[in-house]
Amino acid sequence: MGPHPAVAAIRLAVRRVLHDVLVAHSASSSCSPSAASSPSTRSAPAPRGSAPRDDAPLVLAACSGGADSMALASALAFEAPRAGLRAGGVTVDHGLQQGSDARAAEVADRMRALGLAPVEAIAVSVGRGGGPEAAARDARYAALDGAAERHGATAVLLGHTRDDQAETVLLGLARGSGTRSLSGMAWVSGADGRYRRPFLQLDRHTVREACLAQSLPVWDDPHNVDPSYTRSRVRHEALPILEKALGKGVVEALARTAQLSRDDADALDAWAARAEADVMTTAPAAAGGAQAVHLDTVGLHGLPTAVRRRVLRRAAIAAGAPAGSLFARHIEEVDRLITGWRGQRAINLPGRVEVRREGGRLVIRQG
Amino acid sequence: MGPHPAVAAIRLAVRRVLHDVLVAHSASSSCSPSAASSPSTRSAPAPRGSAPRDDAPLVLAACSGGADSMALASALAFEAPRAGLRAGGVTVDHGLQQGSDARAAEVADRMRALGLAPVEAIAVSVGRGGGPEAAARDARYAALDGAAERHGATAVLLGHTRDDQAETVLLGLARGSGTRSLSGMAWVSGADGRYRRPFLQLDRHTVREACLAQSLPVWDDPHNVDPSYTRSRVRHEALPILEKALGKGVVEALARTAQLSRDDADALDAWAARAEADVMTTAPAAAGGAQAVHLDTVGLHGLPTAVRRRVLRRAAIAAGAPAGSLFARHIEEVDRLITGWRGQRAINLPGRVEVRREGGRLVIRQG
Repeated sequence: MGPHPAVAAIRLAVRRVLHDVLVAHSASSSCSPSAASSPSTRSAPAPRGSAPRDDAPLVLAACSGGADSMALASALAFEAPRAGLRAGGVTVDHGLQQGSDARAAEVADRMRALGLAPVEAIAVSVGRGGGPEAAARDARYAALDGAAERHGATAVLLGHTRDDQAETVLLGLARGSGTRSLSGMAWVSGADGRYRRPFLQLDRHTVREACLAQSLPVWDDPHNVDPSYTRSRVRHEALPILEKALGKGVVEALARTAQLSRDDADALDAWAARAEADVMTTAPAAAGGAQAVHLDTVGLHGLPTAVRRRVLRRAAIAAGAPAGSLFARHIEEVDRLITGWRGQRAINLPGRVEVRREGGRLVIRQG
Repeated sequence: MGPHPAVAAIRLAVRRVLHDVLVAHSASSSCSPSAASSPSTRSAPAPRGSAPRDDAPLVLAACSGGADSMALASALAFEAPRAGLRAGGVTVDHGLQQGSDARAAEVADRMRALGLAPVEAIAVSVGRGGGPEAAARDARYAALDGAAERHGATAVLLGHTRDDQAETVLLGLARGSGTRSLSGMAWVSGADGRYRRPFLQLDRHTVREACLAQSLPVWDDPHNVDPSYTRSRVRHEALPILEKALGKGVVEALARTAQLSRDDADALDAWAARAEADVMTTAPAAAGGAQAVHLDTVGLHGLPTAVRRRVLRRAAIAAGAPAGSLFARHIEEVDRLITGWRGQRAINLPGRVEVRREGGRLVIRQG
């Protein structure tokens, strides 16, 4: 008799990602000079079924102790040795609750009990930048990056599910900043594609069922049901009502929207990069943004709105405007120097960047 | 003392659209041979302030008798003569409720009382295709098209507000079919840009306030609060909860998403049209879709995913697949003939369209 269907589903999802990790790993190993001369002497996976060698590539599970990431850790512990990979785990103690250090130690023990090694619990101090959720996320990823580098890990797996993806799309929708903000979380992200999300197409229910079926102890973070957190309100209030109003397929539709939006945003960014090179009459500043960027207004005028505004945004950032403070209304105002020219004055953007039209050129310069 | 701020807002919105209508009208008039020889003899607007001439361009308001479209009719009645335009009105009796004919006659009377002429109440019979809301919409637009043609109207104004736009984006999100389905309603749509939506950036509250301020009698369609209609559930259940979870700016963010998504979808459609011409090695079928479409697989492979899938969709439709039955999963399967080729069999699409890879060509043909 095979495993419970939910356990089979989480293992299959992790197996597929480990396959991709191996393909990417051997591609990057065979590119390095030493590996090119002797491709099989280092970091080659062991044959399926045997224990991985001590120098086999290492994959880490990021685990909070909640159901999604405990399921992830269990599937990684099962699949990694079969793929000739080593499997480890990291848990981050955000220090935001009483006893969070003991909790982190316990999660680390549970990962060791699953057979993961190395396992590390990392205490971080959470700042206040960008709100409590963003600050905790920043601290968490910094800790995960550090652990990946310390242990020389090839990949770090994250337990986000399709439901998390749907929530992320709704949060992006609330920003109203377009296709990129609707594209949710990527399957692969971070430096060198370090982070992977095997469960992004699995629903939370299946992942939790896999914990039950394996009798895994899980811990429910009280923040997840605290209505003072936006994501918690989206999860417990907004999505259930949206399903009631629009039908049961809403979570799936949101996750599909993420993928389609990501593809669209990637294509448009590529177009904008090419178009920018075509209309730019000077190179962007090499450092510090002190040099002016010059763009050809006739070339800009011939671009579709979506591409032209992306080019203008890129140029403003190249000239020194901070991306996070540059809003759609700024870019729309700059765009009117092209599409609604009636002798407007220079426009001031965040970061002391000034945009002015001089005849057939748009001049973008940091003051 | 000027008008109430809400009345000023609806009038300004209509004034701007009438300006665009006039610009488009004189551009199209001066393109016609007779107008080119004597541009000022026909359909030229009267000077501001005087009554429009009998042969001045006609703009119609589509009016259900509800607050949004009564506000629209009132603003059109006020602004059109000042722009040298004639203003008329149309109301559609969908015949779905007891006494709807008397109601339509009353709405027509109210439009006449505002000074609109000609005014027409048109009875339609609503079919069942695509669900009750889609069927009513189809019948309504057919009636409005007919009225515009009978009266030689230059434009038909629709009273959709920013709140309607937000609802439309949420309904598109529930379909999960990407950027185009998130782009909501257009400012300008229909044959020759006939339909215009002046209130698309005004909130419903302002528009309703303008009715109150002008003591306009309005009629609330019971369908608008009937929870058996999806849009009604979105309006009365989903949006209020989304605002509670995500903050007050949700309606505005959704409306902004519509505009950004429309720009993105337009740019990508333009790219796909160019790319299709580049990779197509035969012309699409002239009629009936009987001729095969051949696409170059190397050219397709070099395109970004978002563009390649749009090209594949266009080609399938050109070969005879009905657009409405062609889903993302169909196109993804066809896409794997390009990006995941391992000797797959031919793929069957709706409309008896078959896609098969033959060496370096994709052959799309109706059977």
